[in-house]
Amino acid sequence: MRDVTTIVASDERRGRSAMRAANYQGDRTISVVDREPSAPAPGQVRIRVGYVGICGTDLHVFHGDMDARVAIPATIGHEMSGVIDEIGPGVEGWAVGDAVTVMPLAWDGTCPACRAGNTHICQNLDFIGIDSPGALQELWNVPADVLVRLPASLSLRDAALVEPVAVAVHDVRRSGLEAGDKAVVIGAGPIGVLIATVATAAGADVLIAEVDADRRAAAEEMGLRTIDPSAVDQVAVVEDWTGGAGADVVFEVSGAAAAVLGATSLVRVRGTLVVVAIHPQPRPIDLHRVFWRELRILGARVYERPDFERAVALLTEGAIPSDRLITRVVGLTDVAEAFHVLESGGAMKILVDVRSEA
Amino acid sequence: MRDVTTIVASDERRGRSAMRAANYQGDRTISVVDREPSAPAPGQVRIRVGYVGICGTDLHVFHGDMDARVAIPATIGHEMSGVIDEIGPGVEGWAVGDAVTVMPLAWDGTCPACRAGNTHICQNLDFIGIDSPGALQELWNVPADVLVRLPASLSLRDAALVEPVAVAVHDVRRSGLEAGDKAVVIGAGPIGVLIATVATAAGADVLIAEVDADRRAAAEEMGLRTIDPSAVDQVAVVEDWTGGAGADVVFEVSGAAAAVLGATSLVRVRGTLVVVAIHPQPRPIDLHRVFWRELRILGARVYERPDFERAVALLTEGAIPSDRLITRVVGLTDVAEAFHVLESGGAMKILVDVRSEA
Repeated sequence: MRDVTTIVASDERRGRSAMRAANYQGDRTISVVDREPSAPAPGQVRIRVGYVGICGTDLHVFHGDMDARVAIPATIGHEMSGVIDEIGPGVEGWAVGDAVTVMPLAWDGTCPACRAGNTHICQNLDFIGIDSPGALQELWNVPADVLVRLPASLSLRDAALVEPVAVAVHDVRRSGLEAGDKAVVIGAGPIGVLIATVATAAGADVLIAEVDADRRAAAEEMGLRTIDPSAVDQVAVVEDWTGGAGADVVFEVSGAAAAVLGATSLVRVRGTLVVVAIHPQPRPIDLHRVFWRELRILGARVYERPDFERAVALLTEGAIPSDRLITRVVGLTDVAEAFHVLESGGAMKILVDVRSEA
Repeated sequence: MRDVTTIVASDERRGRSAMRAANYQGDRTISVVDREPSAPAPGQVRIRVGYVGICGTDLHVFHGDMDARVAIPATIGHEMSGVIDEIGPGVEGWAVGDAVTVMPLAWDGTCPACRAGNTHICQNLDFIGIDSPGALQELWNVPADVLVRLPASLSLRDAALVEPVAVAVHDVRRSGLEAGDKAVVIGAGPIGVLIATVATAAGADVLIAEVDADRRAAAEEMGLRTIDPSAVDQVAVVEDWTGGAGADVVFEVSGAAAAVLGATSLVRVRGTLVVVAIHPQPRPIDLHRVFWRELRILGARVYERPDFERAVALLTEGAIPSDRLITRVVGLTDVAEAFHVLESGGAMKILVDVRSEA
């Protein structure tokens, strides 16, 4: 396995015991520091991190929006791939060298949500990489129960996309979408494009509504169909496309107030609107339409283990256009610059190759 | 059957062929007119109307809010009971004298919603009593397929409540509420009280949130538990009541913007908020909470036949406190006054005894 070899070689070349980590220091600052790696505690494994993807939530952290939640200096990062470097006491079923990703959720198991079986949205959830240290470090200790096995045929680079693909799989699964359904995805950022791809793989006919021309072009290059809702009457387009019925499922992934207000008019009688985007402010919703058509609005957040397993399978099968999604791969010392590129909208997905020398 | 006897006697006493109807004339005016009754057309039956309840939608018509939809002069009214007076050609399974109510929906059977099995919210629905003539007339011709049979043990007076009870049954059924669930009903108007009653009959533990003291008192007299959300911290009350989980189901029946905004904070992880009230304007909703707790918001409108059948059963069993719900019974000539009493908030439910002489 090429990736593993590279990591080991890189480490031997360095010949030092310290490891590097990228830390959010507050005030839109990320710096790379040297740190002594620690041994995995009982129940933990230590991962030699391969790639880490930077997502919108990381950008929110960078902007200071989540300073109340992160412990500065904070090592963030939760979209990742790597190989097991060391096994802590009491961990079974894993071996050094196993390729893995992480489902970055730690639940308390005792809150009402957990007791009802909804551990993934535990009322006291520890989202690893935000609420506790994340993957932007060469050696990362995590509880063994968050590990997800990667097949040998999936590259570590592509495997860094498992987490965002799992988000999309969860959103599609939660929507109840069935083969033959017609679905609208509002917003063609990374998650919007992934939802459209996963829904297509599930047999749906998908239309993306996106106001940004570059994002529409990127989605079209991935074989997805798009419309510009600022240029066409999207309600008329969807009515025409669905024979007057409306879409079976609409995914709101834009985060825009206007998109939410218009979304309910795209949904068929008893159809479903899935709220995927984070809306920090309350948004006006056409509740008369919700009532009139007996619509269903569903919140969808993070993922469950079957979503991760399905995401691994989709990436391994080549169902996800990873080459088009990954705009750029940078080294750990270029993390700060990567955040600036992302916030300017100049990239779909940037990966950090944590192993590379700066 | 007492009710039937009364009707026939009244008719013989009058000894005239014309019948009376209450017509909405526009401009907040309702007048009683004499009209020649017509024979039922093929597929129709003629009902000798007993009682007609006046509901919030009728009040909207009276206020002119629905002038675009009603054909003035309009005979409105859709909550009713009566007995079959004459059977039209081709109608089978019914006999003169049968006690009936009406599920006042006529669908086209061809639109996408109908083809998908959602006839009750047909995209071209004719709501009888709004879009076509209603029950505020002594003799009313309706298609035989809207008839719902009433048992001999249910009085025609109580049977006029079948339609609003069917609304509540539909709302509760759509919510997925199960025995042992904890439900909050926001708003203690007639439908709110009925939803609370039907949910209680289904085995739920129910709390009503209502700002109006008179409505709270009326609900408490029916054995329902209430809180005043303007006087207590309703989120804390519900958290405490549910052991920190939140309510399984919340029914929004108030129509108030503030209630909608607060409602999402009362629902447990993966719980359900049912939008029952009509909200003419878009309402701000806390979509972050919807996302965070993976909530489900469901629109619920009108009813299906099983809801009517369940409503008849509940009324017949005495599960609905009809004596407390029916504030007043007036004659046909007092309809206009009844609307004024209702709009002043001075009554829960007013019935019109269409048979009575003025």
